[in-house]
Amino acid sequence: MKTLSIIGSTGSVGTQAVDLALHKGWDVAALACGHNIETAEQQIRALRPRYCAVMDEDAARTLRGRVADVGCAVEGGQEAVLRAASFEESDMVLNAATGIAGLRPTLAALNSCKALALANKESMVCAGNVVTSLAREKNVPILPVDSEHSAIFQCLRAGEKGEVDRLILTASGGPFFGWDRERLETVTAADALRHPTWTMGQKITIDSATMMNKGFEVLEASWLFGVPTECIDVVVHRESIVHSAVKFVDGSIIAQMGSADMRLPIQVAVDHPHRTENPFKTLDIFSLSGLSFYRPDREAFPCLTLCESARGNTGAVINGANEVAVAAFLQGRIGFNDIYRIAREAVETCDLIADPDLEQVFDSDRKAREAARAFLARKGV
Amino acid sequence: MKTLSIIGSTGSVGTQAVDLALHKGWDVAALACGHNIETAEQQIRALRPRYCAVMDEDAARTLRGRVADVGCAVEGGQEAVLRAASFEESDMVLNAATGIAGLRPTLAALNSCKALALANKESMVCAGNVVTSLAREKNVPILPVDSEHSAIFQCLRAGEKGEVDRLILTASGGPFFGWDRERLETVTAADALRHPTWTMGQKITIDSATMMNKGFEVLEASWLFGVPTECIDVVVHRESIVHSAVKFVDGSIIAQMGSADMRLPIQVAVDHPHRTENPFKTLDIFSLSGLSFYRPDREAFPCLTLCESARGNTGAVINGANEVAVAAFLQGRIGFNDIYRIAREAVETCDLIADPDLEQVFDSDRKAREAARAFLARKGV
Repeated sequence: MKTLSIIGSTGSVGTQAVDLALHKGWDVAALACGHNIETAEQQIRALRPRYCAVMDEDAARTLRGRVADVGCAVEGGQEAVLRAASFEESDMVLNAATGIAGLRPTLAALNSCKALALANKESMVCAGNVVTSLAREKNVPILPVDSEHSAIFQCLRAGEKGEVDRLILTASGGPFFGWDRERLETVTAADALRHPTWTMGQKITIDSATMMNKGFEVLEASWLFGVPTECIDVVVHRESIVHSAVKFVDGSIIAQMGSADMRLPIQVAVDHPHRTENPFKTLDIFSLSGLSFYRPDREAFPCLTLCESARGNTGAVINGANEVAVAAFLQGRIGFNDIYRIAREAVETCDLIADPDLEQVFDSDRKAREAARAFLARKGV
Repeated sequence: MKTLSIIGSTGSVGTQAVDLALHKGWDVAALACGHNIETAEQQIRALRPRYCAVMDEDAARTLRGRVADVGCAVEGGQEAVLRAASFEESDMVLNAATGIAGLRPTLAALNSCKALALANKESMVCAGNVVTSLAREKNVPILPVDSEHSAIFQCLRAGEKGEVDRLILTASGGPFFGWDRERLETVTAADALRHPTWTMGQKITIDSATMMNKGFEVLEASWLFGVPTECIDVVVHRESIVHSAVKFVDGSIIAQMGSADMRLPIQVAVDHPHRTENPFKTLDIFSLSGLSFYRPDREAFPCLTLCESARGNTGAVINGANEVAVAAFLQGRIGFNDIYRIAREAVETCDLIADPDLEQVFDSDRKAREAARAFLARKGV
């Protein structure tokens, strides 16, 4: 039985992990969240962790008062979050933080030799070289929690590392599948927040609509599995049943299918290397029909190609600029296609660093955000 | 590099195995065939085996004269076939014989501790208990060559044995998918020989049309993988892209996909535990659309359910009766639905033996054939 820290416990993946932990009776020793102390209080009362970190220090103080009866230490601030990610009792850290804010908890977990169940893709997108070399150095596994990467992780068991021909990363295609670039100019935040199959946070839903998310997933897969982006095919699969696949050198394609429920990849990561009963409704093979696979429209969704060609610090640059751009889009300040324009301009503005260290990653992130804000200022929004 | 014996080398699977052996440069030490010495001569000249067995003794004599220049010993008769299956130089026997005639070569291979690549499903259908316990005793692997069983074999690598929930065996549905029992009464041999996706021998094509073949595959899967037939789902998948799948206890479904080319499962078995380059055209994921999955129509195709409920010697009984029935159907002596009637009557006539030994298996086969011939005699055909 593993003991867990859950970072980002009140977000979309975090709440599903807590739900699963309650169903499966997992021992959760530590939680960390941003500021949603209503949910955090419920989680503390249900899971009885020994420690809870809240990023917002005021919120931490309020929560501490509210759960004084429970016997869970509550602390506030970035250092508290890192303490949760390296909590002594925990064997495994489930990092479901959002954005580059998840990078430091990832490193804290690895530095303290915890197995890492990684739902924070930005850790890999921005600092894949730093994260993977630290994991190797500490001899600690990184277990993917994204449904696509979990699928690939499972399929890879059907062969040896040197026998992989290509990774096949499926994409739902988002709400604007089939739209051209011109029509996409008119898209509003409300349009983009309607994702066809997965219920997720706002940021990732927009990233899914622009296919930036899929581009990030290509980078994440490349780092996680040691496969160059040239050997990763993105295939649009509207039904979100095949979560991804691996093609081996003999031509055999091994695919993983399941219901569109994040609790499955969470469970696969936490239970690894075992599989245990799933307490939820699973996929019924007889319910499937019309499964289809298309090439993505790279003209309409250029963020995908932008990510695929990323090297060194470019992932951090694209991600930093994209975080600013998506926030501006959600506020109605820019159009849908401006998200790509901002990311591309940041890539053109920032210097390429082939093998950045951690400080260079954060510096690239900062410069990219500046470039993005310069774009917004120039547009007067 | 393995050295192979190929049993049934001039049949459909055998010729594809020879084709692959030539492309891959496999060392084939021994061949065995029935009577097609034209093809056997070509194979001997191309592969340069040290030994060739021909079931028909006259044909063997003719072949011996024809290949006198090559330095390949040619012998005739059943004993010669068993010598090929236990040929000293060979590490692995690919058994692609047709019908219960494949059982003795299977046992010969296992008794001489050769790894067995098994394309002869009747070995398992008729004597699964005898074959699997011999393989265990000799500590020899049985590697499936049927595309469905190869798929399951590959998918099983994604979990541990105790973690399997269900096997999902796909079926093309055959040429009469969607037909009802009444319409099936009118089917002729020529109709039934048009299989939608696979090019195979006549016998297996008819078995595919009645879904008897799928029933046999359920029994074969049950023995090969140690899973009760109640935990094996047959799902009609017209496109023959997903070759089969495994559902694990956590709800994850791992599926294998590939082109409809028997050379892939042959290669997977022979190369096991490795995967190597495939010299042929492989599946293009982007070419796929409209993949669908249906429940089989058990009223129209009752052979499936008949097989699924088979226990002990019932597999041998069904198979024996079916061999007689299919031959009669191909000769136009009986109707399509009579194949099931004959098999069912044989099951009702023959005594159940829960754990038959080899002699009881052959005896059950004989009695089933007698029951089938009695049916034909009663019909006056």
